Amino acid sequence: MFMSEPDLKEIVLWLKGLQDRITANIARLDGHAFVEDAWEREEGGGGRSRLLRNGGLVEKGGVNFSHVHGPVPEFLKKESPDASRFDAAGVSLVIHPHSPHVPLIHMNVRYFETDAGDCWFGGGIDLTPAYPDEAQVRWFHQQLKTVCDRFNAGWHPQFKTWCDDYFTIAHRNEMRGVGGIFYDHLRPGVAADRATLFAFMQAVGDAFNEIYSYMVEQNRDKSWTEAEKTWQKIRRGRYAEFNLVYDRGTTFGLKTNGRVESILMSLPPEAVWEYNHQPAIGTPEAKALGFYQPQHWV
Amino acid sequence: MFMSEPDLKEIVLWLKGLQDRITANIARLDGHAFVEDAWEREEGGGGRSRLLRNGGLVEKGGVNFSHVHGPVPEFLKKESPDASRFDAAGVSLVIHPHSPHVPLIHMNVRYFETDAGDCWFGGGIDLTPAYPDEAQVRWFHQQLKTVCDRFNAGWHPQFKTWCDDYFTIAHRNEMRGVGGIFYDHLRPGVAADRATLFAFMQAVGDAFNEIYSYMVEQNRDKSWTEAEKTWQKIRRGRYAEFNLVYDRGTTFGLKTNGRVESILMSLPPEAVWEYNHQPAIGTPEAKALGFYQPQHWV
Repeated sequence: MFMSEPDLKEIVLWLKGLQDRITANIARLDGHAFVEDAWEREEGGGGRSRLLRNGGLVEKGGVNFSHVHGPVPEFLKKESPDASRFDAAGVSLVIHPHSPHVPLIHMNVRYFETDAGDCWFGGGIDLTPAYPDEAQVRWFHQQLKTVCDRFNAGWHPQFKTWCDDYFTIAHRNEMRGVGGIFYDHLRPGVAADRATLFAFMQAVGDAFNEIYSYMVEQNRDKSWTEAEKTWQKIRRGRYAEFNLVYDRGTTFGLKTNGRVESILMSLPPEAVWEYNHQPAIGTPEAKALGFYQPQHWV
Repeated sequence: MFMSEPDLKEIVLWLKGLQDRITANIARLDGHAFVEDAWEREEGGGGRSRLLRNGGLVEKGGVNFSHVHGPVPEFLKKESPDASRFDAAGVSLVIHPHSPHVPLIHMNVRYFETDAGDCWFGGGIDLTPAYPDEAQVRWFHQQLKTVCDRFNAGWHPQFKTWCDDYFTIAHRNEMRGVGGIFYDHLRPGVAADRATLFAFMQAVGDAFNEIYSYMVEQNRDKSWTEAEKTWQKIRRGRYAEFNLVYDRGTTFGLKTNGRVESILMSLPPEAVWEYNHQPAIGTPEAKALGFYQPQHWV
């Protein structure tokens, strides 16, 4: 295994701590605790899935840690042709709140290494508000820019565009939400040195609690109507479409014998599909659609 | 274009009539009429989508006719390397009833031809009951066997197995429902002569009304609980998973600029995803799961 500092063990320990800090903060906001489901992977490794269902704030939320290892699967052979074994560790979360006014949020930070000495970091945060508030969307992107700018002034524009591209529902020509940042295959010695890439992973992961606390506090006291709840469910349908048709983590996981329940924890508690749904001009729902296209927020 | 009898024009006319007969019968069962949405395809052709939403029986149902033509798209070049233009015509339907005791049903009959003289028929019917009734499942498969046996005694075993394989949600190792028949690429002169293949398409299409009327009449008067409705929504979630991850018509259509709203008309009105949902042993839901594996029904 890779012997540079920080080593895999240190990264894994940090990831577990991140899961602890995030679930503690969401549980505090929600008033209910997560339920943990520990699992093992036949080929090696395992994870801790943590779920919060029907809480005070969260309708369905999953915060997963996993560290899996074993023989290199087919898809990794392209990335690392000389490798025979790999390790992959990460934290991945999706929070579906009850309120259509509190945004759905996703975050993931992950690390791969192989026994051929290859390794890379990936991750990102993106926001999916059913009713986007422009000031909040700008604030959200500014937080991510601030995190990136501490490392490299070129990263935010690059990772923001990557996110816009990645989270696009191509068949609808719209993003699933308002984007954020997305990055992958950041290799030590190429993108930055190893310690810097780990520090960046930590900065992204550690930004989550402040960002989501703010989003919750800004919106949780707004009341909502049945019609607003239905719009949220329609947007959740789009979210499910994206995850099942395009998301590489999901489709790859499903087709390579990943742990189905952890992979699909991201799917919404309830989703709605209406035929040819088009909000009337001038409504908040029509305004929301305008946010789901790439644009400069900071 | 292909000049054999029956020609494309005759097939298209018959398909339109099939859509009329099926929507008339479902409207009769439901007490409400379908709403038609006619559309045109930029590259050539178009369709008539018919939707019934929140009827007396149907929560969401779509019965689509389409006849599209134009330059051969990439995927067809593999099938017909010498072709430059193609026609595709078909009727496709999915009915999501309100009641968890009335099965969800899907049917499709379709015909392709190219200007290189190549052509083929495809189609099938499959049933997705949330609460399968063994006698009804056997009756359903017997109806399809009777249809197939009028043409070729080898077809039912072949098309039944094809259906079991096709409608499997691989990552869950379960079928989306109880199967039926599925067939594709039946070419005149190979599978049977052209008139016979058209007659088979007609027999499958014309079998639909009797089959679904029976399923509705057997089950529509049963009352249901909220818990049964939730189980139906969980099974609809599996249905959405299948359609978005595996169904070739859906994924191909979405990735090749098909008409999104007609393609995704198949998606459920409301679907639910519960983390690691496992019905308790001995419950009707646990019994239902036993039906979603390939088995001999006739």
